[in-house]
Amino acid sequence: MSKTIELAKHLETLHINNMYKSDFYWTWDKTDEELDAIFTVADALRDLRERNKSTRIFDSGLGISIFRDNSTRTRFSFASACNLLGLTVQDLDEKKSQIAHGETVRETANMVSFMADVIGIRDDMFIGEGHKYQKTFMDAVKEGYRDGILEQQPTLVNLQCDVDHPTQCMADMLHIIHQFGGVENLKGKKIAMTWAYSPSYGKPLSVPQGVIGLMTRFGMDVVLAHPEGYDVMPEVEEIARKNVAATGGSYKKVATMEEAFQNADIVYPKSWAPFAAMEERTRLYQAGDQAGIDALEQKLLSQNAQHKDWTCSEEMMKKTRNGSALYLHCLPADITGLSCSEGEVDNSVFDRYLVPLYKQASFKPYIIAAMILMSKVKDPVSALMALDGAGKRKMF
Amino acid sequence: MSKTIELAKHLETLHINNMYKSDFYWTWDKTDEELDAIFTVADALRDLRERNKSTRIFDSGLGISIFRDNSTRTRFSFASACNLLGLTVQDLDEKKSQIAHGETVRETANMVSFMADVIGIRDDMFIGEGHKYQKTFMDAVKEGYRDGILEQQPTLVNLQCDVDHPTQCMADMLHIIHQFGGVENLKGKKIAMTWAYSPSYGKPLSVPQGVIGLMTRFGMDVVLAHPEGYDVMPEVEEIARKNVAATGGSYKKVATMEEAFQNADIVYPKSWAPFAAMEERTRLYQAGDQAGIDALEQKLLSQNAQHKDWTCSEEMMKKTRNGSALYLHCLPADITGLSCSEGEVDNSVFDRYLVPLYKQASFKPYIIAAMILMSKVKDPVSALMALDGAGKRKMF
Amino acid sequence: MSKTIELAKHLETLHINNMYKSDFYWTWDKTDEELDAIFTVADALRDLRERNKSTRIFDSGLGISIFRDNSTRTRFSFASACNLLGLTVQDLDEKKSQIAHGETVRETANMVSFMADVIGIRDDMFIGEGHKYQKTFMDAVKEGYRDGILEQQPTLVNLQCDVDHPTQCMADMLHIIHQFGGVENLKGKKIAMTWAYSPSYGKPLSVPQGVIGLMTRFGMDVVLAHPEGYDVMPEVEEIARKNVAATGGSYKKVATMEEAFQNADIVYPKSWAPFAAMEERTRLYQAGDQAGIDALEQKLLSQNAQHKDWTCSEEMMKKTRNGSALYLHCLPADITGLSCSEGEVDNSVFDRYLVPLYKQASFKPYIIAAMILMSKVKDPVSALMALDGAGKRKMF
Repeated sequence: MSKTIELAKHLETLHINNMYKSDFYWTWDKTDEELDAIFTVADALRDLRERNKSTRIFDSGLGISIFRDNSTRTRFSFASACNLLGLTVQDLDEKKSQIAHGETVRETANMVSFMADVIGIRDDMFIGEGHKYQKTFMDAVKEGYRDGILEQQPTLVNLQCDVDHPTQCMADMLHIIHQFGGVENLKGKKIAMTWAYSPSYGKPLSVPQGVIGLMTRFGMDVVLAHPEGYDVMPEVEEIARKNVAATGGSYKKVATMEEAFQNADIVYPKSWAPFAAMEERTRLYQAGDQAGIDALEQKLLSQNAQHKDWTCSEEMMKKTRNGSALYLHCLPADITGLSCSEGEVDNSVFDRYLVPLYKQASFKPYIIAAMILMSKVKDPVSALMALDGAGKRKMF
Repeated sequence: MSKTIELAKHLETLHINNMYKSDFYWTWDKTDEELDAIFTVADALRDLRERNKSTRIFDSGLGISIFRDNSTRTRFSFASACNLLGLTVQDLDEKKSQIAHGETVRETANMVSFMADVIGIRDDMFIGEGHKYQKTFMDAVKEGYRDGILEQQPTLVNLQCDVDHPTQCMADMLHIIHQFGGVENLKGKKIAMTWAYSPSYGKPLSVPQGVIGLMTRFGMDVVLAHPEGYDVMPEVEEIARKNVAATGGSYKKVATMEEAFQNADIVYPKSWAPFAAMEERTRLYQAGDQAGIDALEQKLLSQNAQHKDWTCSEEMMKKTRNGSALYLHCLPADITGLSCSEGEVDNSVFDRYLVPLYKQASFKPYIIAAMILMSKVKDPVSALMALDGAGKRKMF
Repeated sequence: MSKTIELAKHLETLHINNMYKSDFYWTWDKTDEELDAIFTVADALRDLRERNKSTRIFDSGLGISIFRDNSTRTRFSFASACNLLGLTVQDLDEKKSQIAHGETVRETANMVSFMADVIGIRDDMFIGEGHKYQKTFMDAVKEGYRDGILEQQPTLVNLQCDVDHPTQCMADMLHIIHQFGGVENLKGKKIAMTWAYSPSYGKPLSVPQGVIGLMTRFGMDVVLAHPEGYDVMPEVEEIARKNVAATGGSYKKVATMEEAFQNADIVYPKSWAPFAAMEERTRLYQAGDQAGIDALEQKLLSQNAQHKDWTCSEEMMKKTRNGSALYLHCLPADITGLSCSEGEVDNSVFDRYLVPLYKQASFKPYIIAAMILMSKVKDPVSALMALDGAGKRKMF
């Protein structure tokens, strides 16, 4: 029995009826079994591909991508996932588009979706805006489908919003599961999500938020650490607390990187901007106050600079379990002595973890493909079995 | 018998031999039966897709797109149509291209067409230029095919030129046919193509021209209305007059929006620039006279502003048949109180017609796909029957 | 027996085991039989396509393109080749990417390659940089494959570097082979690769280098001519000399265009920048010395202008064998009286050779497709036979 068939049999045991035709905004919208289904399908698609079996569930179809910020990793991951399943990506490049001044999101959403099977949106820059845009967009296409404008209802893959970064955090989590030999081995493991110093400005909060919102569901001891003023959204911390209440792990905040790293099994040191400052920035942008934005940037950079000791140095790594915690990063990292003079991580640490780091990133295309498959295919168990059984090769 | 088979049987009765390998410049180049064939194939492709049947007639192949102006709707429609049939879009982005100073259109046309099955071009900004560019381009590939440079002869879909906008107007027409329950119900219906005020500048004339050139072929009473100085190309009015002489409808021009709307069954209020001004602009661009262009823009904006009463208000709509004519727009519209303070249409009118408006737009991908299919497939009846009969699904 | 089957039988006689999973940097890395294999597969793919047979060896898969300079011809050729084989192109547009300041090529290479089957890179502007970038990139993906980050090892097609332009020169060569009725007719033919005046600045050396590095392998008399100071890389001249020693042709340098053209069977007059100046430019760019770059440009333009007599005029063409040598150019050319007042070639000469020139360009997509097929398919003979035998059509 192939690995894919084994995985399909596991999938059969899960309650996943609500995933068909559903959008993927935040991991905490989904049940544990639904997340399990994503991981399972991701592994199955990888197995099929490794055995040169076609993974196309689409004969034709479009995946629409909207990147409201620059992106390489997520852009290529989305393109790879679409291609893996047989979809063609059509990018809505707002610079090349005739989106009229004052055109509603509702209109744009319908106009690009006549043949869209799936829609991937990245909009993470402005607190209070990214998720709202995705929701408005998807409500519009849902209404369009209901009104008979669209013949099919496209589904969303959130490619990063201001609240969560589910494709990243699910890929991170699948990497952890593989590194630790299964989800059953994670109980009691300590993971440290910590702030780290970066010489750049305004990095989104969606990764730390996504991490505490997801990783508190697996019985792990999740620790969040950051300097004063770098709090994440309280709503997401509330999610984290509910998660541990339900699954038996723990969630706590500590005041130093040292304490967070102490005996940690996994560390995720990464810079982000203060939530309050990001709220202020959103207001300044809405007011078109460029002088205010510039002043805020200077303020934030000097605020960052007070915490240069928050860095994943060799010293710091020594504090982790056996000095060899699994080091995670969503990439690109600010690497001390390589890409900047002082940054998030020592070059020697980063370099030692290069292979696992790149493997961590390698899960993202499969996670996205699994999200698409689960939202578009009514009977995913049969789909996996059919792909496994068919003689169709990925390449000659 | 499926709807597709019914449509294929209807297609079989039409004289369409000249469509194979032909370009689609203007609707008036085509016979009534040829236009009927496009509508028929568009409906069939939609039916196949709704029943999750593969509509691929290409196993591989390229659709080349050239957008010399920004575009969202038409870009996505072309991409959707190509994908529906199995073609991949390759966009000729003139900014990223090494098109040498002085490089001939003939050379560019051949260089991008070695594997092109179809070519879609939008070039609508300059009177006397858009069609000329398309013609030069297609003459070059035809010559290239004849000379053995190209192994296949790509065909053109005009995605909007300075004269006609056939994919738009054919989609508009198919929408009308569906709304009125068949082409046989259109005889004697009144359609008002009217100018409307917009606070922006230099909108192309191809939509009003395309509308009067096409909609005069179905026995309708077509009325064109615009303020003095906003005439369309006289050659196209000549086409409209010939059409009504042949098909028994009528074509007339009236001086006010009110008169045009009076008892209209269908209204299409939309802004455009004066033809003479667009000619002047073309000359100024050719002379590189930026000061002249700026002056012209100011002149045109203030000329527009004298006609703010040309707007599709609730008052105006009341004059139409039972106060409930079908409202059309090619989108995006300038909506009073939504996207601008005074524009083409009242927000309440626009909002009431939102669903039919978006449905109107939804026909464009199918119209484009039908144009491609009819120009590339020698025996379209067999092709539709084969797609209907094959067990191949669009998606799992 | 179809032409494809004949070609497959010829392919079977060649020693090509080393091509599977190999990169294509420079033609001189490959044996004569390996180059023969590329030509053979290119001809077979063309034959299959002409007979409307599907040439897809991929059911899904990605071709990554990286154009570090603007490109039309090569971009469309790569897109065409990928489409022909069933791959989708995903372009790494460095402007839209979040490639961090200081991000290593190793990281970028892995991040975009998780599902890459083939990678095409054009990077030709800086002497000493283009090939180095390609090598660093491909070493990174090779390491990524070895380390289990990538499940498959993508292969490289060099779409032009600072040293060679193999897809161009192989296409040129296949054109010559077809024009002269077979490689066996080339022995003793004289080909003149000559510099020509251009009013523009800094054209790469990879074409003349690629030509002397490749065309010296077919028993031809290869002559290189350029004004003083326009030398090509000595390493490549060394290759040319080794080639003729092995294959019995000749390679020599002459001081004038007249001498080079004398009784030539083939002429390839084309501008390029002086090697030493390109080295200096690389240094100036690395130092960020814009004033120095501007000064160098002026110096080079005036240096060029001293050699306006190096032009492929009608006079010059008369010196060739029967006044009717085969004229080659990689396009776009600087055409006297068409795209500039004084350039590389007279308009009347260029125009007379238009059809063969465009045919020359038409081989490039097939050459690229053949390079991809040979590097990805373990048993290309079976692949060609399977494509020929299968009833699968390219289009309905």
